Amino acid sequence: MKYSTIYPKTKKEDPKSISSPGTKLLIRGGFIEQISSGLWVMSTLGLLVRKNIEKIIRKEMNTSGAVEFEFPILQPKELWEESGRWSKYIEAGIAFKLKDRKNLEYFLAPTAEEVVTNFAKKNLRSYRDLPLNIWQINTKFRDEIRPRQGLIRSREFLMKDAYSFNESEESLSNTYSIMEKTYNNIFKKIGLNFIKVDADSGSIGGNNSSEFMGLTDVGEDTLIYCPKCNYGANQEKATVYFPEYPEEELCNLIELETPNIKTVEELCNFTKLPANKMIKTIILEVDGYPVIVSLRGDLEISEIKLANLLGATNIKNATPEIVEKVTKAPVGFAGPVGLYNKTDVKYFFDISAKGIKNFLCGGNKKDYHYINVNFGRDFLEPETFYDLSKAVTGEICSNCKEEKLNSFQGIEVGHIFQLGQVYSKPMNAKFIDNTGNEEFFYMGCYGIGVSRIVQTIAEQYYDKNGVIWPVSIAPFEIIVLPANNKYHLEDSFEIYKNLISLGFKVIIDDTDTRIGEKFANAELLGIPVQVVVGKSWQENKSLEIRWRNRTCFAQNIFSIEKENSLPSCKIEFYQLKDILEKIFAK
Amino acid sequence: MKYSTIYPKTKKEDPKSISSPGTKLLIRGGFIEQISSGLWVMSTLGLLVRKNIEKIIRKEMNTSGAVEFEFPILQPKELWEESGRWSKYIEAGIAFKLKDRKNLEYFLAPTAEEVVTNFAKKNLRSYRDLPLNIWQINTKFRDEIRPRQGLIRSREFLMKDAYSFNESEESLSNTYSIMEKTYNNIFKKIGLNFIKVDADSGSIGGNNSSEFMGLTDVGEDTLIYCPKCNYGANQEKATVYFPEYPEEELCNLIELETPNIKTVEELCNFTKLPANKMIKTIILEVDGYPVIVSLRGDLEISEIKLANLLGATNIKNATPEIVEKVTKAPVGFAGPVGLYNKTDVKYFFDISAKGIKNFLCGGNKKDYHYINVNFGRDFLEPETFYDLSKAVTGEICSNCKEEKLNSFQGIEVGHIFQLGQVYSKPMNAKFIDNTGNEEFFYMGCYGIGVSRIVQTIAEQYYDKNGVIWPVSIAPFEIIVLPANNKYHLEDSFEIYKNLISLGFKVIIDDTDTRIGEKFANAELLGIPVQVVVGKSWQENKSLEIRWRNRTCFAQNIFSIEKENSLPSCKIEFYQLKDILEKIFAK
Repeated sequence: MKYSTIYPKTKKEDPKSISSPGTKLLIRGGFIEQISSGLWVMSTLGLLVRKNIEKIIRKEMNTSGAVEFEFPILQPKELWEESGRWSKYIEAGIAFKLKDRKNLEYFLAPTAEEVVTNFAKKNLRSYRDLPLNIWQINTKFRDEIRPRQGLIRSREFLMKDAYSFNESEESLSNTYSIMEKTYNNIFKKIGLNFIKVDADSGSIGGNNSSEFMGLTDVGEDTLIYCPKCNYGANQEKATVYFPEYPEEELCNLIELETPNIKTVEELCNFTKLPANKMIKTIILEVDGYPVIVSLRGDLEISEIKLANLLGATNIKNATPEIVEKVTKAPVGFAGPVGLYNKTDVKYFFDISAKGIKNFLCGGNKKDYHYINVNFGRDFLEPETFYDLSKAVTGEICSNCKEEKLNSFQGIEVGHIFQLGQVYSKPMNAKFIDNTGNEEFFYMGCYGIGVSRIVQTIAEQYYDKNGVIWPVSIAPFEIIVLPANNKYHLEDSFEIYKNLISLGFKVIIDDTDTRIGEKFANAELLGIPVQVVVGKSWQENKSLEIRWRNRTCFAQNIFSIEKENSLPSCKIEFYQLKDILEKIFAK
Repeated sequence: MKYSTIYPKTKKEDPKSISSPGTKLLIRGGFIEQISSGLWVMSTLGLLVRKNIEKIIRKEMNTSGAVEFEFPILQPKELWEESGRWSKYIEAGIAFKLKDRKNLEYFLAPTAEEVVTNFAKKNLRSYRDLPLNIWQINTKFRDEIRPRQGLIRSREFLMKDAYSFNESEESLSNTYSIMEKTYNNIFKKIGLNFIKVDADSGSIGGNNSSEFMGLTDVGEDTLIYCPKCNYGANQEKATVYFPEYPEEELCNLIELETPNIKTVEELCNFTKLPANKMIKTIILEVDGYPVIVSLRGDLEISEIKLANLLGATNIKNATPEIVEKVTKAPVGFAGPVGLYNKTDVKYFFDISAKGIKNFLCGGNKKDYHYINVNFGRDFLEPETFYDLSKAVTGEICSNCKEEKLNSFQGIEVGHIFQLGQVYSKPMNAKFIDNTGNEEFFYMGCYGIGVSRIVQTIAEQYYDKNGVIWPVSIAPFEIIVLPANNKYHLEDSFEIYKNLISLGFKVIIDDTDTRIGEKFANAELLGIPVQVVVGKSWQENKSLEIRWRNRTCFAQNIFSIEKENSLPSCKIEFYQLKDILEKIFAK
């Protein structure tokens, strides 16, 4: 391809009001262009990258035995009403909705469980038809509250979605493992730096679910990770091991005057006690009702864990009025003493609090806290403690119970779910099992954010001069650069054509610019190999080849001549094929 | 691929209430399944066919020098307001419209002139950037009044659309010819039976436009075609050559009593005059105003030609009240005598009427017609005659002026337009020309109905047993059929794998069914070659290969053994590759 026909052209300056490095460099390289909030044009080069990703996905999905389909983007309301999700999605306001000329309503596919389950219900009759894993790559839509970060949180995007239909939990679990392996292969082949973590199932429903997270500082998800046993989970889902608190003599309960001192931080300063010697007590409003949660002072409540525990959809902090009504004190002085087991309001203790001795907590009285509080003695010890706090770095891994947890920021690029029968039951989707009885399908669903991966890679592989595409998904493998169009354009085109006929994917920068600009351009484009055709070609048929990535390449082929230059070497044309095949590991 | 994983399975019976043979056979073969009016699932096999078509299109478009993009499906209202088409499309009610959470409005892409012109405006600055032809394959939407005929008139469909930006009419005309050639190549490679015809530009706008029509009896468009000079045009656009009427003595005007005789047919019976010796006069309501048109009695008025002449959007027959007001007579008795040049109402004569002598026409008086009417003598001869009638078979070709026209029914599969500056002017999309002045882009647009082609092919290539896919786009080239699973399944899988490793696209019918059913199934699937693995394989390593198409295949490889069987031959495995490569012309 000729670079002269590529638009948008690369931009020298960073776009304004764009924060993430990946978004900036995708725009500067001309890979994407915004037309409206959360709506992006995939330009020629961006589309080539995405199609390479699609190709890898297609190959691995087909190898896994899944079968490709394409379901409509317009999804009739009636199917969403069968599953019971129409009103849920309307309430959440996250789906685009429209009416046709007959006033019938549709969602613009936010996901496709309903449509695919409906297909399975009509076409899969017997256990002999199972398992079947139906997949597609198709456009999806989300009416995001705040579209941001380019392709990461756009309103229209490409997804790979798959839906498996199984005859039993065991079969489902088997398909789930196959998908887990398939996803590992896909992300490895793409070249993504990723980890797999336990995840919350969210609005999709079901039990077991894992997320595949592309690791990058700009990722909006916090991932908790154990460097020893590889346990990983989304912070909202991650569990922590709290070792038993050491034995301690129980001290006398003291009521302490704490004038206008309310927060944990203020209490630490005032009392010189550490936050993990305190219990903080929070009053929330859960689906309209007050709920009390006590947890260790240095931890934060996980609203998602609480929502899952209570099957709730809407959680917020209670108003000062409600706090006062529940605790008889203003905000900042709640605590279990005199409150736990003494109120009709639901009250939960986080496991972080279990067994803690001589702790500080609120006095349920303005400007007073207690110190040296103890379970059993000062208030009834709860029978059950719940996991309601956000996992944080430094806590002990719940899996190996040995290592301290670490954390990363990540972007969700894949998500796999064991749905069980949460869709097949309401949609009455059944098959005849091997005993002749009707049974609801066991289902799994498996998503990959295809367009999102383009950008996740850009957030992972770049330097100050541009994106650095992994060879696996680069729009082109080689860019041919004539040192001076006046003298070298013809030769360059010849080499360009020869490289194409050798089977390489090649672009030539045929624009009428100086070699310095061509180098800068080639760096912004992030093409792995640059082939420079200049004087040495005319003199002794020798070419300079340069490797785009300064840091991670075998130095036994390339060397760095000057400090700021790229790793490069000079070779003759007959050597070109061998060297290129070697560096592309073809 | 294993047929056991393919769904929907083939159906023995025709689906009810489906009219076209192609739709029936696509459903019966399991290529498509309807989920709602005008919304179809592309199943695995249907998708494979469509992807083969996409591949051919992609290759030819890239060869033409056009560059691939992907533009969003959600198109902001503001761009459609710039071009002035938002209100037009709203009025026509043909576009799906929706609002986001901020109440901003969008169309679901019915076409993409606005979005692409907006892109060009921002990125193409100079004549040096031109010409550029930007294309995509993407989903489009139309809120059809009556979705029908499967993928032909569906509400969601795949289109290839391209938009060229040129510096002059000459350059545009050059790109237009390149696209014309490209389209010819694409449709030939697909194997489509098609013709190119002159077309009306419709709501897209612009001047020159051609349609590529897939020929089939179920096509909704009537195409006029000259077998001598290959002139072709959509009936709405086609022009006809009317030879001069022979000289005739002018006879005396006669007022004839025609009691309750109104239509041309009734008049023919009553007067024994032929319809082409009559002038019929029609009163229409054009955008709310009455308009009179006179044309030869055996022809029909073309509302599209009239709309183009008057720049009108809404044409209907006038009410009896208006006819009476304009002609002073009830419906059925209008004529030029005493009316032409005697009324303020716009009055047009069709060219078919030019020079006709001694004709019959209405008397503008209840139950009266005139005969032996003549121009100039009985009413003023109009200065201009207009082309306002629909071309019909049997008339003389306007191009060669020799041969009688023929007609076909067709499905529009491609449409190319020279738009000129109809979008660039209202959208203020300019470039700097080679004299340094600003100029509006000259534009062309070029569409192909990708999903529609799947069905057009099915309407063209079938017999009573199923679709017969051309090799170019068949979902698989070969289907392997074990004669009896009990004895031949293992061998069949071995042959299946060998054929795949030889580079063929192969499916195996591994379902537990008898060979008779497998044959019927294979015919419904329309795979070009069947390889039967049976007794003769076990006895002497010989295979039977059968060619799906009974009628059109070189008989020097195959022979027909029994009357109802397929052309077939027996060969040994080592011959297989050669024979298959020969018949696939690889």
